[in-house]
Amino acid sequence: MTHPSLQLDNTVHQRVRLGILSVLAEADEADFAYLRNALGLTDGNLSRNLAVLEQAGLVRIDKRFEGRKPRTWVSPTKEGRRAFAAEIQALRDLLARVDAVEP
Amino acid sequence: MTHPSLQLDNTVHQRVRLGILSVLAEADEADFAYLRNALGLTDGNLSRNLAVLEQAGLVRIDKRFEGRKPRTWVSPTKEGRRAFAAEIQALRDLLARVDAVEP
Repeated sequence: MTHPSLQLDNTVHQRVRLGILSVLAEADEADFAYLRNALGLTDGNLSRNLAVLEQAGLVRIDKRFEGRKPRTWVSPTKEGRRAFAAEIQALRDLLARVDAVEP
Repeated sequence: MTHPSLQLDNTVHQRVRLGILSVLAEADEADFAYLRNALGLTDGNLSRNLAVLEQAGLVRIDKRFEGRKPRTWVSPTKEGRRAFAAEIQALRDLLARVDAVEP
């Protein structure tokens, strides 16, 4: 049997990106400020990790104007939802293995 | 409530290192070749991540001779066990939150 950690994909598993995809799984769409506050991130750190997720095709980033203020919205793509579900399954497998060992 | 991903510590959460600590939680002590094979790693990748864990005080690395062959053994420190347990708890919290959202 291969170890469950081999199923983990770093694009999704990395701490900040796992947090982003997890918030998006709850909210479908979230704006930049909401993600930053919910995850306790700096603007720079959030931007960098959103760029990684966007380049991997896992999120879509839309700038929309509300009145004259631009607002950045982030939503998961279909592939992003699939990748998040695969990560969650890998984590469940890892925890099941930990539980099988512990008394 | 703070998001569960904020409890994740990158030293332990990173994919390869989570795999190493997870195997050590099962085995108490493992040799280099066993870890490499169990986790499907190259020598270089395993060495680099063991060095990170050793510098963080999470594993102990011992070279011992068996006959004339040196063999490298790795075991978790008390702090390594504590950090792994904290990571597992954070992952449980994250999954509980995912389960609370999904229908």
